[in-house]
Amino acid sequence: MKGKEKRNVIVGQSGGPTAAINSSLAGVYRTAIDRGYKKVYGMLHGIQGLVEGRYVDLSEHIRTGLDAELLKRTPSAYLGSCRFKLPEIHDDQALYDKIFEILDRLEIDCFIYIGGNDSMDTIKKLSDYAIVSGSDIRFVGCPKTIDNDLALTDHTPGYGSAAKYIGTSVKEIIRDGWSLETEHGQVIIIEIMGRDAGWLTGAAALARSEDCDGPDAIYLPEVDFDMEAFIKKCKDLLKKKASIVIAVSEGIHDKDGKYVSEMDNGVEYVDAFGHKQLTGTARYLSTVLSQEIGCKTRAVELSTLQRAASHCASRVDILEAFEVGGAAMKAADEGDTGKMVVFVRTSDDPYQAGTEVKDVHKIANDVRLVPREWITKDGTYVTSEFMTYVRPLIQGDVGSIMVDGIPRHLWVPGFQDLL
Amino acid sequence: MKGKEKRNVIVGQSGGPTAAINSSLAGVYRTAIDRGYKKVYGMLHGIQGLVEGRYVDLSEHIRTGLDAELLKRTPSAYLGSCRFKLPEIHDDQALYDKIFEILDRLEIDCFIYIGGNDSMDTIKKLSDYAIVSGSDIRFVGCPKTIDNDLALTDHTPGYGSAAKYIGTSVKEIIRDGWSLETEHGQVIIIEIMGRDAGWLTGAAALARSEDCDGPDAIYLPEVDFDMEAFIKKCKDLLKKKASIVIAVSEGIHDKDGKYVSEMDNGVEYVDAFGHKQLTGTARYLSTVLSQEIGCKTRAVELSTLQRAASHCASRVDILEAFEVGGAAMKAADEGDTGKMVVFVRTSDDPYQAGTEVKDVHKIANDVRLVPREWITKDGTYVTSEFMTYVRPLIQGDVGSIMVDGIPRHLWVPGFQDLL
Repeated sequence: MKGKEKRNVIVGQSGGPTAAINSSLAGVYRTAIDRGYKKVYGMLHGIQGLVEGRYVDLSEHIRTGLDAELLKRTPSAYLGSCRFKLPEIHDDQALYDKIFEILDRLEIDCFIYIGGNDSMDTIKKLSDYAIVSGSDIRFVGCPKTIDNDLALTDHTPGYGSAAKYIGTSVKEIIRDGWSLETEHGQVIIIEIMGRDAGWLTGAAALARSEDCDGPDAIYLPEVDFDMEAFIKKCKDLLKKKASIVIAVSEGIHDKDGKYVSEMDNGVEYVDAFGHKQLTGTARYLSTVLSQEIGCKTRAVELSTLQRAASHCASRVDILEAFEVGGAAMKAADEGDTGKMVVFVRTSDDPYQAGTEVKDVHKIANDVRLVPREWITKDGTYVTSEFMTYVRPLIQGDVGSIMVDGIPRHLWVPGFQDLL
Repeated sequence: MKGKEKRNVIVGQSGGPTAAINSSLAGVYRTAIDRGYKKVYGMLHGIQGLVEGRYVDLSEHIRTGLDAELLKRTPSAYLGSCRFKLPEIHDDQALYDKIFEILDRLEIDCFIYIGGNDSMDTIKKLSDYAIVSGSDIRFVGCPKTIDNDLALTDHTPGYGSAAKYIGTSVKEIIRDGWSLETEHGQVIIIEIMGRDAGWLTGAAALARSEDCDGPDAIYLPEVDFDMEAFIKKCKDLLKKKASIVIAVSEGIHDKDGKYVSEMDNGVEYVDAFGHKQLTGTARYLSTVLSQEIGCKTRAVELSTLQRAASHCASRVDILEAFEVGGAAMKAADEGDTGKMVVFVRTSDDPYQAGTEVKDVHKIANDVRLVPREWITKDGTYVTSEFMTYVRPLIQGDVGSIMVDGIPRHLWVPGFQDLL
């Protein structure tokens, strides 16, 4: 703010890790320093760690330009992450007072939180409390999620790299499936993350190109899953091809909302936000097909690989993640609070997108699904509109910094002991 | 052979696919053409397809230098593979006569087979039959297997790329594990291919570097698995670290030879060579730990990704695969038969290796295990000797040829219909 000497910034990371979240951290740091802030603190394990008084001075971690480049290429949340839902203000005002006491002690002007839906809930509550309590601290959110399901933004950093990894890996798995012939045909089922939204699963279609048919069917959670139709589809496909590949979201469910993974006898696990943790959709479907058709089946879960695969990151994604970190810092510096930075796409081809800030109250706890019209009528593939949307986000690569044959990540002595 | 006009060559691929097997195919083709052979045929689905009269003229597939470069970067077996065990000659001489009839009709001088243990059994039998039946056709094997378990060779093409992918992915998974704190700690179990030999599982140790502790324990099939010691090890590790990562081979078994995966109630599947197909080792161990320790667990199977990940291939591996294909062709051209090309390493640092030809009778159906002294005394890690061995094989990258954000593979119109 004009006329007032700039003091310090604190930044945290929250929710599921991605291949791009640390590039946003690098972006926040760079812009904070460039704009004249004295110190940039990093919360360890987000707001949960901050409450416990756990933070670092980022200048001890991002010491050189090379460190910043390594950070951009480091997967997972460098500072540690959390899934911690702040209580409502009236339910635990003491907690809010404690947080603001810590922020005041650290002489914080700007609080940047890099995360998804649940993290924006944190920005909303803290910025609300700042207004109520007369604090000058500005709270701005920086979007991040491989799920790409945040409202009001064209897309979220982290999605492009995960989509590129999924497209690349699905194509390699399809090709692998050509190699061996089996008597009754083979069905490979690839399980992809995305509980509610099918953005990631739809990205499997990126494997489709001049040299590859792509997956033979794609099942998103936006469309109710019909087991009988699925079995019939596989039978029909096997009449034409010896090896078929199906991409399914971990969150597909029948018309009554029952998850396919729950049809199995897997253990159910619910996290702090009440989200069901799913497992075994592909495995369950493989077993069904093997029984119903008698074909060979293979279940492949892309698991955490899809969110951690920095070695296959998209250049557009990593640079945009850096940009959006800087934009969040800029917004807070210029007085915004209770806001999140969003991407606005102005053109698909050539791809052009810029950033804006939006009211976080309109974003938090909302989920943006794949539009129904971007999914084929029979619900077994994505349309060309979906492809036009996702294609620009996976372009280019960052180039891993290789040491002795393996990508190098950012690490400073004693760092892991802090986490 | 001197004084005789050169005619044609046929080449086939067999066994499990790798990221490097097509580079060997490109190497065979290049050397065959350079040495003056007229046509190079490719068997479709190996010897099994050849018996059915299925083959292509490779000049219709490798039409340009760019095609050859794409082929080197294409995962899976370009020509299709098979797991077909030739019967003993005295059990089905008619089959051998049929094969030689086809080879004679195609005017074949040299038969090159790219594969692992079982494929060398095919070379052995066909070269034996050629001698018995007075045929001039020369049969030479070109090594290939991600398992790295072929006898008499320092290593096998395909292993280096799989090892690089495993080291890279394990490192990313370890880092991902740092992000979220859990109350009772977290154990991530990564299941890696290799039924009998632990070469691939040991490669998980490549994640250990200045910026990463590497996996916390590694269990190879060369050492009997002790469930009680395993649980105690995990308990001890969780006292020191919040997130631990364990790499296990799919083939680990107890002292009675019972596979850990069979301790689960998974379905057993036996292939044509009588090999048990395993699944679910990591999943089973996760369940055990979750019950015994109450920690959070996650099972990650690298599945076919580890053998198909051309996008993460090792430059040393791809170039050596090309070299060994050429060396096999050269050996056959110079009159060798019943031989396989092997690598002989003359120096670890700087890495230097050359090729030689060895009698395939000494190779077929033998399995080369990780030496016991390359595994720590307690059987839970590999030693520095193992690392010195594997490190040179993962160096460098090939550089994917990217089209619209996804690696391009070799494909010609109508090709997939042939397979």
